[in-house]
Amino acid sequence: MKAALYQGNRTFTVTDVAPVPPGPGEVRLDVAYVGICGTDVHIFHGAMDARVKPPQIIGHEMSGTVAEVGPGVTGLAVGDSVVVRPLDNRAETAADRGHSHICRGLKFIGIDSPGAYQRSWTVPAFTVHKAPAGVDLKLAALAEPLAVACHDVRLGEVKPGELAVVIGGGPIGMLVALVARAAGARVILSEVNESRLAFARELGFEAVNPAKVDLPALCRERSSDSGADIVFEVSGAKAAAATMTDLLAIRGRIVLVAIYPKPVELNLFQFFWKELKLIGARVYEPEDYTKAVELIAGGSFPIDRLITRVEPLDRIQGAFENLDATPDAMKILIDCRA
Amino acid sequence: MKAALYQGNRTFTVTDVAPVPPGPGEVRLDVAYVGICGTDVHIFHGAMDARVKPPQIIGHEMSGTVAEVGPGVTGLAVGDSVVVRPLDNRAETAADRGHSHICRGLKFIGIDSPGAYQRSWTVPAFTVHKAPAGVDLKLAALAEPLAVACHDVRLGEVKPGELAVVIGGGPIGMLVALVARAAGARVILSEVNESRLAFARELGFEAVNPAKVDLPALCRERSSDSGADIVFEVSGAKAAAATMTDLLAIRGRIVLVAIYPKPVELNLFQFFWKELKLIGARVYEPEDYTKAVELIAGGSFPIDRLITRVEPLDRIQGAFENLDATPDAMKILIDCRA
Repeated sequence: MKAALYQGNRTFTVTDVAPVPPGPGEVRLDVAYVGICGTDVHIFHGAMDARVKPPQIIGHEMSGTVAEVGPGVTGLAVGDSVVVRPLDNRAETAADRGHSHICRGLKFIGIDSPGAYQRSWTVPAFTVHKAPAGVDLKLAALAEPLAVACHDVRLGEVKPGELAVVIGGGPIGMLVALVARAAGARVILSEVNESRLAFARELGFEAVNPAKVDLPALCRERSSDSGADIVFEVSGAKAAAATMTDLLAIRGRIVLVAIYPKPVELNLFQFFWKELKLIGARVYEPEDYTKAVELIAGGSFPIDRLITRVEPLDRIQGAFENLDATPDAMKILIDCRA
Repeated sequence: MKAALYQGNRTFTVTDVAPVPPGPGEVRLDVAYVGICGTDVHIFHGAMDARVKPPQIIGHEMSGTVAEVGPGVTGLAVGDSVVVRPLDNRAETAADRGHSHICRGLKFIGIDSPGAYQRSWTVPAFTVHKAPAGVDLKLAALAEPLAVACHDVRLGEVKPGELAVVIGGGPIGMLVALVARAAGARVILSEVNESRLAFARELGFEAVNPAKVDLPALCRERSSDSGADIVFEVSGAKAAAATMTDLLAIRGRIVLVAIYPKPVELNLFQFFWKELKLIGARVYEPEDYTKAVELIAGGSFPIDRLITRVEPLDRIQGAFENLDATPDAMKILIDCRA
């Protein structure tokens, strides 16, 4: 069975490995499509070698079907269309207070343990979410990043008619914008890359370059002079952190989606003055997966527009190299059945 | 009638002025006690002369009785014991969305208009809260800072049994600690000044110097290894902003009470990683005043312990100078009837 092994130093090798028979509580999946995540690119660049320990199979944004069911697994049958929520919380303790998805002992499947860039993947059954029969598995491969967006919008408590600003128009920012719009928000997307701006406009968003447009003024203009209700900070840019507070109305909220490895300056005076809220958001909870699968299966959510290209597993090396050369791409899928 | 005029340059003069007859919708109050607020000290130091425009009567933490009721005022009668919520929101607009207490056109009475360091004070009736007959007016003078604390604890949604850390043991920090404890929280007070620490311990709090004690470890120890549920940042210290995220459990909250005039560094990674929340809090809403008056009138709340000294209006100059020399003092009251 074909599998792509990340070898370190920007190198994948596609080799033959034996499928792993499912143990008690596990299922073996036939992998259909796996999306290339920003984290995968980060791994490819060697930035996470200490954690990943090459050679390792990585990848976690997947869709597929159940191939084999291990002892004790209920609710799943061979042939079911599924997606995987790649969070292994088995090291959770009482000190985590039930917040399983961000428990201190969390292992991320596909980073801390073998991932999905292979024909057959064996995972704990509790990570598997069923998708409706007949779902387009290409679209279902986007369930993982879409669940991130569903989590962000849910934690932000977006209400119909609210003005939302999404800072950063990469795949996650674009998905947050789509989910916020589906929740009834009016969305402005802020992005400096012109081709991403053009893409956001194709999706029907008001999309602006904050280096060229007075974004705080635009927010007031779109809100009868109040300012935005909610900002999703997805860019990770220092300048975004420094200025996001200027966009908001009194009692506005910021959902912090981006990862800032180092401390950055924030305008705490604005938090006090306008009674703003900052809400950290990380990965997803089971209900976010349920919502993501619903949106995908519903058919009216334009998730298909985010798929830039599909490449066969044999060409994974080229797909990663290509992504470095064309950073404007949205989602590249690896077809593990091809 | 005696009044203290702030003249600029660390100088008050006590002179005779005519009482202001109440116009429509106004009441004239006989002022009993006025607490010296940190903002008053700031004004005394000349830091707010552009806003205050000396000579001006300042002061806003007051208690008193109704002396005269203007035309059209209902619900208030001569002799009623009262406190004033010194927020004039008459310039509020629809863009403020009903958040009257922090509306953009807010005028703070006692800063932006004449204040309470005088025998007789005329204010809009909508700022007046009645206290029960027979309330100790010395204690009632603390309603304003206590309402700040009630607002902070309410916005923080403190629940019984939670572990709360209050950073900063000045008058507001101490009141936040008391209100959080009254709401059922277990409170740790963090403060570097040893005499404030000793005072906090007298009030029954676990009080520690974060320069000497490993505060994150203490929080874990007091919470079965989870960390604190909520932090009240009242110190305004850069070091507090930089490290407050280390104290918290997964999904912990920070209520930002302190004023940071300049941007400061925050550990946004922790906000993401633990899904923390930062909640800005400013002044108070009417319900916070209701709560503060209830606590004071209830009799079991140890607000009396915070009154360091009472000085007659004639000695206001010395009282302010003395406060500069003894920064450990909690609350100094000016007796405007003496």
